[in-house]
Amino acid sequence: MKKLKIGICGWGNVATGLYKTLEDNRIQIESNSNTQIDIVVIGARRDNPKCDPKNITIERDIFDVLNHDIDVLVELIGGVEVARELILKSVNKGINVVTANKAVLFHHGDEIFEKANLNNVKVLFESSVCAGTPIIKLLTEELSANKVTKIAGMLNGTSNFILSNMEEGSDFKPTLELAQKEGYAEPDPTFDIEGLDAAHKIGILSSLAFGTPLPPNDFYIEGISNIKKIDFKYAKEMGYTVKHLAVTKLNEDQIELRAHPVLIKINSYLANLKSVRNGIEVETDLLGTLHIAGSGAGQESTASGVISDLVHLANSNDNFSEKNSKSKNKLINFLSLSFQYYFYIEAEDVPGVMALITSQFAKKKIGIESIVQKENLKNNMVPIVIITDLFVEKDHKDLLQTLKKLDSVDAVRSIRIELD
Amino acid sequence: MKKLKIGICGWGNVATGLYKTLEDNRIQIESNSNTQIDIVVIGARRDNPKCDPKNITIERDIFDVLNHDIDVLVELIGGVEVARELILKSVNKGINVVTANKAVLFHHGDEIFEKANLNNVKVLFESSVCAGTPIIKLLTEELSANKVTKIAGMLNGTSNFILSNMEEGSDFKPTLELAQKEGYAEPDPTFDIEGLDAAHKIGILSSLAFGTPLPPNDFYIEGISNIKKIDFKYAKEMGYTVKHLAVTKLNEDQIELRAHPVLIKINSYLANLKSVRNGIEVETDLLGTLHIAGSGAGQESTASGVISDLVHLANSNDNFSEKNSKSKNKLINFLSLSFQYYFYIEAEDVPGVMALITSQFAKKKIGIESIVQKENLKNNMVPIVIITDLFVEKDHKDLLQTLKKLDSVDAVRSIRIELD
Repeated sequence: MKKLKIGICGWGNVATGLYKTLEDNRIQIESNSNTQIDIVVIGARRDNPKCDPKNITIERDIFDVLNHDIDVLVELIGGVEVARELILKSVNKGINVVTANKAVLFHHGDEIFEKANLNNVKVLFESSVCAGTPIIKLLTEELSANKVTKIAGMLNGTSNFILSNMEEGSDFKPTLELAQKEGYAEPDPTFDIEGLDAAHKIGILSSLAFGTPLPPNDFYIEGISNIKKIDFKYAKEMGYTVKHLAVTKLNEDQIELRAHPVLIKINSYLANLKSVRNGIEVETDLLGTLHIAGSGAGQESTASGVISDLVHLANSNDNFSEKNSKSKNKLINFLSLSFQYYFYIEAEDVPGVMALITSQFAKKKIGIESIVQKENLKNNMVPIVIITDLFVEKDHKDLLQTLKKLDSVDAVRSIRIELD
Repeated sequence: MKKLKIGICGWGNVATGLYKTLEDNRIQIESNSNTQIDIVVIGARRDNPKCDPKNITIERDIFDVLNHDIDVLVELIGGVEVARELILKSVNKGINVVTANKAVLFHHGDEIFEKANLNNVKVLFESSVCAGTPIIKLLTEELSANKVTKIAGMLNGTSNFILSNMEEGSDFKPTLELAQKEGYAEPDPTFDIEGLDAAHKIGILSSLAFGTPLPPNDFYIEGISNIKKIDFKYAKEMGYTVKHLAVTKLNEDQIELRAHPVLIKINSYLANLKSVRNGIEVETDLLGTLHIAGSGAGQESTASGVISDLVHLANSNDNFSEKNSKSKNKLINFLSLSFQYYFYIEAEDVPGVMALITSQFAKKKIGIESIVQKENLKNNMVPIVIITDLFVEKDHKDLLQTLKKLDSVDAVRSIRIELD
């Protein structure tokens, strides 16, 4: 039986979940993996009333955890700057690190991996993307013969929960409140619903697949807070639904990186991932398209991912020195990408309004694939739904501004259409 | 860079695909995995006109491959008895084995793994189930903290191709011919369409998850050759579609193991895997339900799985000695399982026929959830579709026989309904 001595830093939900799982599932873990994992020390600034770790040394200064005889530091404190300092100290002392912290990897990943390689230690992070759903090991281990060409994922459970409920006919605000009540959304939901969480995760996946830097250069991030219930109805009439998608894609020798709402075909794989589920679609040269989906959050799922990292450390003799040495591919400027768009426009129901609106598209030489005038609203405004031909992103913002300035136009919004 | 010397036995499609992939993707594999894989020797009874391996020793007696200085034997000869002998010789010589051969593992897995453990060598087999789609490593590596409680999979690409086409309105026979034309089905398709291929695969997965023996004791295997196009129509009216499913499931402390066609909810994950795609659904204690899907066959996909095994061998220091030492859980007798059933019955359109048919169910105390008489057929027979309540499998065969013997009944068939 392999033996692994670990120190845990942080003593919140994730850490106590890990502690309980290691206790409760000890026999199972040892039988499955031939690995005995012993918690030697816990770094906790304060006690957690929900969990009393018996017979384990507690350090109130989390940095003191590194003074114990441990094989692995498990970093579960969250946040960015202190986590960075802790991980770098661990790495510099030659102690392996397992972390579930996507934010610290997004902002300081390159520095962390570079220092880890210098010190010949490993930093594993399965739980940082979609908790224990083994997306990281899929990319780093199982696909090693493959050239990955695209990853598209629904990486934020809160957004997917809200959009799935809106698809069934709920409004945004009560659904967000429900998500908060059920524990799927934070009291301040900004990070999830404005797309930042998904952006962190796709940044990490992009670094693994294509060697883009961590932190990446600026890329396009948009959340779901402007999506309305009616968009699902009109999308569905055309065979689409609305999802929040994060994409990294090899586009000749540059990388397309973006996270924003999209219309996707309603019968596609990702459209069928509902509620808080996370999932990714990976395109490769040898395996074709691969899908994996599972729970993207939660104490137990995160614990599962951390333990799979620990087992991996105990049983492997590789080092990840090559993993981050791929060419740092350049990001494509988002404004140079082309999309088809869904436009929702509320206009006054007066003669000539359709001509006025469509002429704005024509002036920019933007083709219209379909245009439908819907039933009048209560305020006698008329909704118009337009699907455009492909046009370049840099014309999109201008067009939106132009439409919004029209006297006879009230609301305007647009959603990109994700083609296969 | 890790170095691995391998010998390949067999020189058919899969082996030449592996050779080409190792040649063509060499830089990619080395960069992704930090592992250099060198083919030292090939065991080929005859040349393959499609592929000329340059500067590699060829042995005409495949057993002579084991006399070379190799770290791993890659067994790609297929078949059962010679493959068993080759693998056991390799293992006894202390040479690791990678195989894509599900049949030899199904029939002799326990013996092979026992001998491998005795000799402290590894036998890896990612490509034996769903080719390179990393289902085996998911179970053996990434889920090591989890207790798996159920695996349900669509494991045979040929069956799924045929059923997906029938769902779109094709008949069985022309679809099978199309599958043969496209290379998705063998000239003799028995192995695929009668469920044996899927049975081999679920037997292997069941051994990994629950320690059931290889070969397993008898379990229920049924193929898709009795499914008719009209079943999809009637299934769809009730929110179902027809798929071929292989299931292994912890049922108290016994194991449910089976492979047969089912009606499953049309909006479920597995219902949405179309064409030749393979996929599994894994239920676990920590991660909840996990899905993975990808291509289940093909030269390149299989090569990808073999290479992931080779990279794993080069980079791990574990051994699988514990993997097969799980309690050999006993299989549940299939006749003691209960299902809801779909029955399709063609009967003469005469007074009293409905009473006659339903009374057969009543006599066996089998409840009927719904019964619908459909539009008359051209021969004036009337199709009757019945969904039953749950009843035990042992009454099912009797009921089928009884119904078939009725003078006024022509065709009768039944499909089990897979509940969540």
